[in-house]
Amino acid sequence: MAIYKAPLRDMRFVLDEVFKSSEFWASVPALAETDREVVDAILEESAKLNENVIFPLNRSGDEEGAQFSNGVVTTPKGFKEAFRQYGDGGWIGLGADPRWGGQGLPKTVTVMTDEILFSANPSFALYPLLGIGAALAMSQHASDELNDFYLPKIYSGEWAGTMCLTEPHAGTDLGIIKTRAVPAADGSYAISGTKIFITGGEHDLASNIIHLVLAKLPDAPAGSKGISLFLVPKFLANADGSLGERNKAAAGSIEHKMGIKASSTCVMNFDSARGWLIGNVNEGLAAMFVMMNYERLSMGIQGLGASEVAYQSAAAYARDRLQGRAATGVQSPEKPADSLLVHPDVRRMLLKTRAHNEAARAFAMYTSRYLDLSKYGEGEAARAGADRVALLTPVVKAFLSDKGFEGCVDAQQVFGGHGFIREWGMEQLVRDVRIAQIYEGANGIQAQDLMGRKVVKNKGVFVASFVAEMREQAARLNAPELATLKAAFVAAIDRLEGLTRTVIEASAKNPDEINAAAVDYLHVFGFTAYAYMWALMAEAALPKKAEDAFYADKLTLAEFFVARVLPEMEGRARAVEAGAGTMMQFSEAYF
Amino acid sequence: MAIYKAPLRDMRFVLDEVFKSSEFWASVPALAETDREVVDAILEESAKLNENVIFPLNRSGDEEGAQFSNGVVTTPKGFKEAFRQYGDGGWIGLGADPRWGGQGLPKTVTVMTDEILFSANPSFALYPLLGIGAALAMSQHASDELNDFYLPKIYSGEWAGTMCLTEPHAGTDLGIIKTRAVPAADGSYAISGTKIFITGGEHDLASNIIHLVLAKLPDAPAGSKGISLFLVPKFLANADGSLGERNKAAAGSIEHKMGIKASSTCVMNFDSARGWLIGNVNEGLAAMFVMMNYERLSMGIQGLGASEVAYQSAAAYARDRLQGRAATGVQSPEKPADSLLVHPDVRRMLLKTRAHNEAARAFAMYTSRYLDLSKYGEGEAARAGADRVALLTPVVKAFLSDKGFEGCVDAQQVFGGHGFIREWGMEQLVRDVRIAQIYEGANGIQAQDLMGRKVVKNKGVFVASFVAEMREQAARLNAPELATLKAAFVAAIDRLEGLTRTVIEASAKNPDEINAAAVDYLHVFGFTAYAYMWALMAEAALPKKAEDAFYADKLTLAEFFVARVLPEMEGRARAVEAGAGTMMQFSEAYF
Repeated sequence: MAIYKAPLRDMRFVLDEVFKSSEFWASVPALAETDREVVDAILEESAKLNENVIFPLNRSGDEEGAQFSNGVVTTPKGFKEAFRQYGDGGWIGLGADPRWGGQGLPKTVTVMTDEILFSANPSFALYPLLGIGAALAMSQHASDELNDFYLPKIYSGEWAGTMCLTEPHAGTDLGIIKTRAVPAADGSYAISGTKIFITGGEHDLASNIIHLVLAKLPDAPAGSKGISLFLVPKFLANADGSLGERNKAAAGSIEHKMGIKASSTCVMNFDSARGWLIGNVNEGLAAMFVMMNYERLSMGIQGLGASEVAYQSAAAYARDRLQGRAATGVQSPEKPADSLLVHPDVRRMLLKTRAHNEAARAFAMYTSRYLDLSKYGEGEAARAGADRVALLTPVVKAFLSDKGFEGCVDAQQVFGGHGFIREWGMEQLVRDVRIAQIYEGANGIQAQDLMGRKVVKNKGVFVASFVAEMREQAARLNAPELATLKAAFVAAIDRLEGLTRTVIEASAKNPDEINAAAVDYLHVFGFTAYAYMWALMAEAALPKKAEDAFYADKLTLAEFFVARVLPEMEGRARAVEAGAGTMMQFSEAYF
Repeated sequence: MAIYKAPLRDMRFVLDEVFKSSEFWASVPALAETDREVVDAILEESAKLNENVIFPLNRSGDEEGAQFSNGVVTTPKGFKEAFRQYGDGGWIGLGADPRWGGQGLPKTVTVMTDEILFSANPSFALYPLLGIGAALAMSQHASDELNDFYLPKIYSGEWAGTMCLTEPHAGTDLGIIKTRAVPAADGSYAISGTKIFITGGEHDLASNIIHLVLAKLPDAPAGSKGISLFLVPKFLANADGSLGERNKAAAGSIEHKMGIKASSTCVMNFDSARGWLIGNVNEGLAAMFVMMNYERLSMGIQGLGASEVAYQSAAAYARDRLQGRAATGVQSPEKPADSLLVHPDVRRMLLKTRAHNEAARAFAMYTSRYLDLSKYGEGEAARAGADRVALLTPVVKAFLSDKGFEGCVDAQQVFGGHGFIREWGMEQLVRDVRIAQIYEGANGIQAQDLMGRKVVKNKGVFVASFVAEMREQAARLNAPELATLKAAFVAAIDRLEGLTRTVIEASAKNPDEINAAAVDYLHVFGFTAYAYMWALMAEAALPKKAEDAFYADKLTLAEFFVARVLPEMEGRARAVEAGAGTMMQFSEAYF
């Protein structure tokens, strides 16, 4: 069985020692009341609830799956009670505005509880997560009337939420959706169409489900400029909040999937369902992107969460499993064989995964600071925060989920044949985490967003600002113990900066160069960001290395990262340099 | 649904134009009668049988799985009839000695029918494959009496075979197995013990199953030098070949796995089961390695087979699926969107997979020539062939299965959300191919075998011979069109040669350097070998590039390989250079 303990010590290291979050919160007036001790209590409680209640449902949830019958979805045993406990504990509203019953905690806190939840049970995690995302989009775009009515119930877990974008013929390309919204006399709309891949479109965890649906008005312009966003509840609610008539929004079936089987993925049929406009007509995509960006960060954290469980489980297995003898001589003569940990290649897989995970955790926290600044900061700080978030979101989503998948696959490999057997739980981690690379914009789309919109379109100004900040950090790494790390970090920054210029120049001549470079460039960016995180972590650990092995080990892992993990970046960089080359020469018939 | 057509044109290109197999067969007296036209008929028939009968059972086989009840395994619907057809058609004995009913075809032929079979249905493929492997080990080590009695029935598919190595506590480390063999008065042995992960340990496809079982005699030396090999049939056979008493060898359960669900993976209990010694006492491991090496090549081909189906399916999807518009301007104004193929990143994923697959196919054929030489060649040619096989087998097994997995994951990504849904079949490809990296010696073990036994132990003489041959090939690439390919190929050879020296030298001081470098070195080796294959393919294609787009496209894909695929090698090379470094500094408690 997979094992999991929330990595609180590492989280506190990142929170306090690397990022000095108390100082950060104190510097932002709207966050000044964030209490470090309360945060600690929250982390402890989150660990307890997830380790003891939600994690144990992960394996059984995979075996049982979400079941569909006659339009009704039944979640696996225990999910309903756990969801109730999760809602009652205030976890859904942890980061929400107190005006609607939220706890008002910053992203720099909820990023950690999100990670714990995704480690514990990614299928379960999606049910509250979609509600939070829907509520977030509403809170920024819907009327006060809608928000005051719906949000408190979503944040309490009484009601749940979804986002309905994809249609059978329209995934990435939302401009060609066919769902229609016809205005009614009372100001509502009649929504008709079919949506697919709707996470939590139907289930038994909440008494009502609030769907946010993209649709087009009869006279809407073609393409993505003609999309509006609607709120479509499963049950129409009475003015007092009690449930009224069933709306004509129903699940037609659920998908049978590779993983996250306990999460219901629904085909949703809207048949003149009553809905209400959110935000302005034809500006639905912008409102939906509020939700998408929130989800995208979460999907990166899903990758990290899975990879953390994978690491912990594989490390424990490697300690216990006796196979072969150390090349340098027998280590445990009293036993029939030495542990797997005497074999360097087993350590290589474990340490690579751990080095990725620790960098990912720091990078998610780093990005969350900018999310907090963009939301709670003022003036220039808020604007700069939003720009940084725009730049980093696709990287967090894609790089963390790609490396999370890699970590799960490597950890599975440590188990040998047992890794392929269901009861050990490792194969489930691989199957479950795989979706994080696909949904909420496949990672190729994230890369295109980064390379096209966030880099080339603004001629690299976002990257330049990030690079300048990294150079400042590199300049501070003057301790002789960090010389190798510093050199590697500077080399990575140089490479990223050079490639940014290369692609901007090449794309001026051939617009295909953007998409041709995108994925490899995103990986170069991700590795550089991870090198930055290791620079920050090493800087924080160095002064304490003599007092505690925890810090000395951080420095050693930073060295390992530079020596054995970071080199992959060079292959990616050379692929970027090679450009579109011959790719587009092949005829479509060739494929 | 996944789609599949056997890539006969590409196979013939490799067979005839790249490797001039007819000339090769003519040069080896024992193979001189191999008839090119017969081979072609075999390929056509193999394609027909696999595409029409065996491939359609792949998806349903996954849904149904092998079922276990009261010691009996029921295979999915259609498997029994297909196995009968496969056996009756002579496919199991295709490469076997005619003395026992085989067709006597060389590996340079069966490597292609193996690929087609693994593309069609990897779960199904394992049933005949294990019998072939068992028969091969027997044919080289068992007495004439045993062989004449058992082999014809295995090659006809009347009986099946297994290999029983792993025990619950002993996977890679066979030296610590506990299964015991006690000599009986009649020259047979009483075998007792439990074996796990036994592919095809029990099923309903054949009337009898012949298990090859590793066990220790009561007075055997400790460790791997005390292991003997036994033949243990499910039913004891009468002298006339009819089935007699049920032997005490039975399945206790089957595993629930990530993939290859239609293949039964059994826990086998031997309870004083009657068995017969194969080969010499205490030399069982050597006999088993005949089988293992055969299987290892097959596991690489399993990776290729899966990746070929993945490519074909994803390419067809990308052609048909309309999403977005080309960056260079609308391509299909009459349609609501352009096809996925207008996006360079989609092409990148497809072309990478295809470039890997085509190199893998050539590399498997190249290795098969040396298998043929080692088996059918004479004197020095046979010895050199065996050395080359020893060097390449771990590379074929691990690199082809690693790249096969990567290809399936990339192809799944092309499908977006649909890739995660069972009905599309892409997620099954990922789940099924994953085992190829794990079984028959996990890929880390393959890398250790390569780096330790095949490189460091002989101080690099096997590599030196391979490098010399590659340099000769590089020297022949003098056409100006191939200059870039030549430069990249030579650079790869230089890198491989340099790293070989680096690891040999480092390991003299620290034996942990071998295993620390192993996996990354194997990938450097694999990329260099693929560059060699692309050099051979480009050389063969160049003179015909004007006459047929097939050849021009080969040259373009070779360019793509150099520009966009081969660069990954440099990251691997730098990781090898970094060495064990800090890896072993962490205490076991750290993990």
